[in-house]
Amino acid sequence: MEENLDGLSQQEDLENEPDLTSVVEQAFDEEDYDEVLSLTQELHPADMAHIIQQFPAQKRLKLVEFLHDKISGEILTFLEESVRESILPLFTTEEVAAAITEVESDDAALILEDLEEDKKREVLEAIPIEERITLEKTLSYPEYSAGRLMQREVVLCQPTWTLGQLIDSLEDLENIPEHFYDIYVVDEENKPVGEIPLSWVLRHPRRTPVAKVMNDDVRTVPVDLDQEEVAYIFKRYGFSSMPVVESDGTIIGMITIDDIVDVIQEEASDDILKLGGVTEESSLYSNIIQASLSRFRWLFISLINCLIASRVIAHFEKALDEFVVLAFLMPIVASMGGNAGMQTLTVTVRMLSMYNLRVGHIVGSVKREIGIAALNGIALAIILSSITIAWTGNVKIGCIIGIALIFNFIWSGFAGAFIPYLLNRLNFDPAISAGPIMSTTTDVVGFSVFLGLATTILF
Amino acid sequence: MEENLDGLSQQEDLENEPDLTSVVEQAFDEEDYDEVLSLTQELHPADMAHIIQQFPAQKRLKLVEFLHDKISGEILTFLEESVRESILPLFTTEEVAAAITEVESDDAALILEDLEEDKKREVLEAIPIEERITLEKTLSYPEYSAGRLMQREVVLCQPTWTLGQLIDSLEDLENIPEHFYDIYVVDEENKPVGEIPLSWVLRHPRRTPVAKVMNDDVRTVPVDLDQEEVAYIFKRYGFSSMPVVESDGTIIGMITIDDIVDVIQEEASDDILKLGGVTEESSLYSNIIQASLSRFRWLFISLINCLIASRVIAHFEKALDEFVVLAFLMPIVASMGGNAGMQTLTVTVRMLSMYNLRVGHIVGSVKREIGIAALNGIALAIILSSITIAWTGNVKIGCIIGIALIFNFIWSGFAGAFIPYLLNRLNFDPAISAGPIMSTTTDVVGFSVFLGLATTILF
Repeated sequence: MEENLDGLSQQEDLENEPDLTSVVEQAFDEEDYDEVLSLTQELHPADMAHIIQQFPAQKRLKLVEFLHDKISGEILTFLEESVRESILPLFTTEEVAAAITEVESDDAALILEDLEEDKKREVLEAIPIEERITLEKTLSYPEYSAGRLMQREVVLCQPTWTLGQLIDSLEDLENIPEHFYDIYVVDEENKPVGEIPLSWVLRHPRRTPVAKVMNDDVRTVPVDLDQEEVAYIFKRYGFSSMPVVESDGTIIGMITIDDIVDVIQEEASDDILKLGGVTEESSLYSNIIQASLSRFRWLFISLINCLIASRVIAHFEKALDEFVVLAFLMPIVASMGGNAGMQTLTVTVRMLSMYNLRVGHIVGSVKREIGIAALNGIALAIILSSITIAWTGNVKIGCIIGIALIFNFIWSGFAGAFIPYLLNRLNFDPAISAGPIMSTTTDVVGFSVFLGLATTILF
Repeated sequence: MEENLDGLSQQEDLENEPDLTSVVEQAFDEEDYDEVLSLTQELHPADMAHIIQQFPAQKRLKLVEFLHDKISGEILTFLEESVRESILPLFTTEEVAAAITEVESDDAALILEDLEEDKKREVLEAIPIEERITLEKTLSYPEYSAGRLMQREVVLCQPTWTLGQLIDSLEDLENIPEHFYDIYVVDEENKPVGEIPLSWVLRHPRRTPVAKVMNDDVRTVPVDLDQEEVAYIFKRYGFSSMPVVESDGTIIGMITIDDIVDVIQEEASDDILKLGGVTEESSLYSNIIQASLSRFRWLFISLINCLIASRVIAHFEKALDEFVVLAFLMPIVASMGGNAGMQTLTVTVRMLSMYNLRVGHIVGSVKREIGIAALNGIALAIILSSITIAWTGNVKIGCIIGIALIFNFIWSGFAGAFIPYLLNRLNFDPAISAGPIMSTTTDVVGFSVFLGLATTILF
């Protein structure tokens, strides 16, 4: 079996790889533990983490218990946060401490973060004093800040050195990062004054002065900057790494682009899930009860929204009693307005999270969205009115539904663009709260305009 | 003014930076062209691209015409595709050819791609033959494949070399990439047999044999692999660069992690917008008519969905005529089911695009989602039934709405998990098509179960 897997080309490997988890799971179910061991023993830590992650939540803990000694610190760093959190209690303080000393400082902080408060303290006490101080410092920065993202291992040099001196200095360094892309040039106060990509070091003769090849337009990241903004800077300028500085400008670490990949992925996932009414990323891997609870809140808000809409409809009891056809048609106006509003909202939330929506430009953006919604509203109103007239034979009702639809579309353009913007200004997360608010308004506007017009015109 | 901007720290710079676009726009509106020039002259190409992008579509072309000579190839590569496409016609064939020769091969292909067929041919004829051949080869790979993403500039060495020989060889290389992170070790057939991160080259003495320090477990990317899968491999293993190989295994280029950042960003944006019913990323920057058209399709599908739901309601005319309160309540069941289904759908689509949903696990996943939906359905049904009874004083209607809600939730759990999975299997994009299909079913199920139960029980 193993031979077989090794023999696969990488391409096939990736395609068949879902099967590897299944094969492991089957062997595990059949209690063929030798097979499980032989299947997993030569795996890349990322692949091992992947299999653990893909196991159903109930079986996952048993698998981890079985593979206990094989779970390295590196494997832990490759796991999703919620999965890591759920398996960490299976390890002793000493084991966690050993795993932590094995990985780089940013990854160590990630693991520590997921421990219970008590265990965190115990683990910190079990690791060497120097590393402990570093880690405690890292943990003192706010979650999701540059300070948490950075690694403290960083290669520095002086502007007065030559490239040869720089290369030689690397041999003496103890805390050298496993991978790094740039070397930072600092002045006597340890403030970055330049940077040199590794490729430039290699491309110039050893005698070249550092000051001559360095890029002196080095950008720095303040240690307390939010990780989303850090990711934005990386994306915008295409940097491979950036130095992180304290408020006095001294360098204390660096962030590399591979950390940023995770941030971008997380933030995008977060936005997607929130827009879909799922607040917790953890719901991808967590158990049914946790997942239900994390989704309940948003459903409860939707229920309130629906009840409000329902009361609005009840206001027009007389019209509905007289013309039952209004009951068939009214959900169309409300729901189409909601759909159009969701389009606008999605675009606006995306613009906001990509920093593309300028403060000064909200007026232009709202106008644009109203324009788009109005155009589509008119086009769809013509179609809907014609169908309604053909169906009911009532021209008045056909006109009423068309007018109501256009009106609700215009409103949805305004609400879909303005609500996220306003929430963002007020420091609420628009991805999560704008949707329910917007759809309540499009329901209320949709039902009341349609049924209100009907009451006025038909009676 | 300029002095002022230069004096800002970077942090302030980023926060105030929306204002820079506004300041430029104001100067441009006031026809104070000297001011526009002085504001923009020392900007990073990424910042310049940002300002161009943030200008409203109508003014953007005028700004580009005005700044014509200052638009470098690098600025073009920093632009979003739709913006680049819209401004390229403002440049002559020679200007585009010059811009293309200035940038690396992957970026050159990006620009060429956005040209009209005729102009593309003209530009290709205007650039040096060697580069033209390279570019034509790159363009021959399918869009969104590794071949388009890779750069052909790559640093290679032989396993028999020492690190010193490797470093010396860099001086003679003509086509050296501006930035690179790894050097690939190839055999006589030009097939990768190892890789050496640059940081390792620097950390070992010059006399060390390449074969001794290289990582011989080098993974390669087939040239025709989809960029989404390439991004997945990078994310999963945390690579900084990977060699791209032809079907015979020979190396033809490399992909670096900074290219991947863009892919991840694009794919996530794409999923977000599609789930929100916006098919074209271009709608973020395009004009109102284009944006309206790109959103119309989804709205039209929604309209059909609504009309189907409407016909379902019409089936129960008698019940509605008799009990008008059913008309107030029926949208609640349909719309709550749609919301719950959207949660499930979002999670499933996200799982599918992150490759976390295993083929073998669809049964488990559907069961899990039905479980979550059922739990929330029961909880919300209790709340909704109580409110309905308090409101209408009719216990039967209270029970009917509760049962219908639970039923529709269970359906939404199934549909939200199974539909995207099925579409994915059938090679449709679940992010775009699953939403409308799912919400049609939750509407139909919601209305017919609620009104059907009411008809059966109340009469």
